[in-house]
Amino acid sequence: MITGKNYIGDRLSSLGKVIYKTINPKLNVENPTDFFEATSEEIGQAVQLAWEAFSVYRRTPGSQRASFLNAIADEILALDHELVDCYTSESGLPEGRAIGERGRTVGQLRSFATLISNEDWRENTFDAAEPDRSPMPKADLRKTLVPLGPVAVFGASNFPLAFSAAGGDTASALAVGCPVIVKAHPMHLGTSELVSGAIIKAAKKTGMPNGVFSSVIGGKEAGMSLVNHPHVKAVGFTGSLGGGRALFDLAAKRREPIPVFAEMGSVNPVIITPNAISKRSSAISDSYAASITLGAGQFCTSPGLLLTIAGEETDNFVRDLADKTIQVEAQCMLHPNIKNGFEAHGAEVIDQSGVSIVAAHTGAQVNYADPKIAMVSGSDFLANPQMGQEVFGPFSLVVKAEDEAQLVEIVNNLEGQLTGTIIAEDNDGLNLTTLVDAMEQKVGRIIFNGVPTGVEVCPSMHHGGPYPASTDSRFTAVGADAIKRWVRPVSYQSFPKTLLPNSLKTK
Amino acid sequence: MITGKNYIGDRLSSLGKVIYKTINPKLNVENPTDFFEATSEEIGQAVQLAWEAFSVYRRTPGSQRASFLNAIADEILALDHELVDCYTSESGLPEGRAIGERGRTVGQLRSFATLISNEDWRENTFDAAEPDRSPMPKADLRKTLVPLGPVAVFGASNFPLAFSAAGGDTASALAVGCPVIVKAHPMHLGTSELVSGAIIKAAKKTGMPNGVFSSVIGGKEAGMSLVNHPHVKAVGFTGSLGGGRALFDLAAKRREPIPVFAEMGSVNPVIITPNAISKRSSAISDSYAASITLGAGQFCTSPGLLLTIAGEETDNFVRDLADKTIQVEAQCMLHPNIKNGFEAHGAEVIDQSGVSIVAAHTGAQVNYADPKIAMVSGSDFLANPQMGQEVFGPFSLVVKAEDEAQLVEIVNNLEGQLTGTIIAEDNDGLNLTTLVDAMEQKVGRIIFNGVPTGVEVCPSMHHGGPYPASTDSRFTAVGADAIKRWVRPVSYQSFPKTLLPNSLKTK
Repeated sequence: MITGKNYIGDRLSSLGKVIYKTINPKLNVENPTDFFEATSEEIGQAVQLAWEAFSVYRRTPGSQRASFLNAIADEILALDHELVDCYTSESGLPEGRAIGERGRTVGQLRSFATLISNEDWRENTFDAAEPDRSPMPKADLRKTLVPLGPVAVFGASNFPLAFSAAGGDTASALAVGCPVIVKAHPMHLGTSELVSGAIIKAAKKTGMPNGVFSSVIGGKEAGMSLVNHPHVKAVGFTGSLGGGRALFDLAAKRREPIPVFAEMGSVNPVIITPNAISKRSSAISDSYAASITLGAGQFCTSPGLLLTIAGEETDNFVRDLADKTIQVEAQCMLHPNIKNGFEAHGAEVIDQSGVSIVAAHTGAQVNYADPKIAMVSGSDFLANPQMGQEVFGPFSLVVKAEDEAQLVEIVNNLEGQLTGTIIAEDNDGLNLTTLVDAMEQKVGRIIFNGVPTGVEVCPSMHHGGPYPASTDSRFTAVGADAIKRWVRPVSYQSFPKTLLPNSLKTK
Repeated sequence: MITGKNYIGDRLSSLGKVIYKTINPKLNVENPTDFFEATSEEIGQAVQLAWEAFSVYRRTPGSQRASFLNAIADEILALDHELVDCYTSESGLPEGRAIGERGRTVGQLRSFATLISNEDWRENTFDAAEPDRSPMPKADLRKTLVPLGPVAVFGASNFPLAFSAAGGDTASALAVGCPVIVKAHPMHLGTSELVSGAIIKAAKKTGMPNGVFSSVIGGKEAGMSLVNHPHVKAVGFTGSLGGGRALFDLAAKRREPIPVFAEMGSVNPVIITPNAISKRSSAISDSYAASITLGAGQFCTSPGLLLTIAGEETDNFVRDLADKTIQVEAQCMLHPNIKNGFEAHGAEVIDQSGVSIVAAHTGAQVNYADPKIAMVSGSDFLANPQMGQEVFGPFSLVVKAEDEAQLVEIVNNLEGQLTGTIIAEDNDGLNLTTLVDAMEQKVGRIIFNGVPTGVEVCPSMHHGGPYPASTDSRFTAVGADAIKRWVRPVSYQSFPKTLLPNSLKTK
């Protein structure tokens, strides 16, 4: 049962007077539950509990934390159709997506559990003493990684499970011994409460300290009190540039600044060479019509910018792509606000001088998105950086460069991106080395002859990128290395074995 | 010959009208050379050259960059007594220290050269494609580390060689393919010019692109233009909390925020248990009188805070330590400003309620530091956080806690530190596990029965710590991992081998 309350540690709490409601975007009605905004008192309690839990939790053996993560996965699966129903009613996303995303979430939890089942993740190093070294003896030195402390996690609108209460940020932080306080995304508070309940159950079953996890409801103010709390030591965020940057600025202004990893989306540029168009126009337009509209374009890796070179075949390709894109059935967006943002930001780009719509349906149901493809010349695009903004939804802007040199110039002028893609022939007319080199400077992941949507969870995945794709290009939100955001090294010099952390006693 | 000019790439330049002079603190006279402050035009040129060099330099094979680093080391050694003489005349430090620090600097350069002679530092990972995986095929993914871009390095006052023009920040950034623009520390501009000349010579000899290194002269304004330049992608700083925090704030406010690693010093708390005092009071006071006064206390790891428990033996120990400390001959400080700061900050601490001087000489020569030991009760210390501030120089405050519980409370109330030390017996009366645990939360390195001064350059060294010891506790300024500040991951998905970076072609 969904209560609408905050989890302050293992206690349900509803001291606040402000009520939040979620919306069923398909039906365009409010869902029944009243959700209670967390008061600053409740947020303070949650952080204090996390701080107290930290002193115990950071010392738990990896095997116990692994059991905890696996138990969370089990409890999430045990929620079964209650979770799937709540997810779909709050997000407008189809059941298949709910089940798929649940699988991803559970998979992430289990893969972090596997990661910490031994101590390799601590990257321990050992330097033996050299007491006879001249002119100065060398001391025994050993280094390990330790958790930073309580982490505040901000759930994403577009991944109610995989980047929310028990998503990648939470799983990676809990894995290394950091307690987590989640600020639930206001668009899916019921889903968040169900998952938070699963985490609390798992914590109890596996004997974790109270406070290892809390979940609070609120808006900007709640987020600010979390980030400003002296016992919060790091922040994970997935969402808009505006939101991520605001938290980053806040954290940087603290007396003790703390790291914020904000993954803030991207237009994910795709270079499509004339040669590739010439050879397989139809296959490319098929795959891109699908990628642009996947999940109503509500992915941070959605391809929002297609870069090519002007020509007759290009024009044919763009028309073909646009036709196929608008033939994709309109899909429900996550929330009326997301739908409104899609329309408003799309209109902003389309209103810029030189931009024309290639094709767009209209007349979709309320909260459903009509896919759109727009087009602009390379020169107009270069002259107006506003065209490079993200339009969150099934929208893509095709930029037709005059020639190869202008294409490279466009890439060189891009802002930082999560991904960049190159669609080309193996023996392409263009200098692919130059294009790859230019793209590498702008992105965290480059795809060759594929689509950017679909973020594999594996060691070689990097999900991050130069600003504004993320606030720190050196870290990733997906994959095993996601834990590196929450740990710091400590060296032990000349320590007796009895006082060393267990993982440093092995040599 | 020292010209007093800036190195804008390989060109000596002196467009500025403002003149800087260095001081010989031993003689208390200005050194003869006029140094020309860099204009904003010169700084812009240096960064532009670095940006252009980056496109070539980041692609150089590791073996070539290794040759470059080794050539820098050779050229520094070739400067021979010219460098040693300039160093001593600008720093007041003795010749032995100059030669020792030169050895450390050359050693760092060579060890980064060794590190990049193969590609292990890139932490490459490989995930093989699984085209038949169900429900979705898995793409081939490979991940590597690439350099961030031009790095601005701010030289430290207290290490004219090892943390300056060719110091650890420069060496680690150049190693991974980042061009460097150094802002020379105003206290040793001649030393900086000589070393910068050595770097430029080495760059020419090994065929590195012009702009891979520049060195500019200036104060706060020059530093600000560097950090604000859009083509500067990261900052390395060693110095005061005020200076480091100002650069951090500036970088965080940029349109594109960039990472700043500022190492800002520390009071390096040392717990000395009553049991240890009881067993070996004299040996401890010997080693700490030496550590407190080493290099006139001008090390970031200088022990400025000794924590113990009140008692008769403690009082005897403190008197003994103070006597031994003031018997150490007064040493020349780096600069009149450093000497004035030492006196002023020491007086600030001593003026706090409850603080008394145990022993202090007076009457040292101008610019020479009289060592001082002060003392305060645990309760007074807890009541007044200002006592925990760093006094840069041969000064240490002894805090006498009432009991073990108060000792732990004092540690729990400390700010972040580079190091923490525990002097104890193997079977001590105190609960060492609790003390180690408390200390671990505050520091980047814990030493058992040793002194914090002396920072070994090796893989297990961590030189950094929770704020305000550094701006990001996840990174180190010393050791092989120092390169991690300047690199970011990039994933390559479904790439043909011909287009992969060389180090990812191996599988």
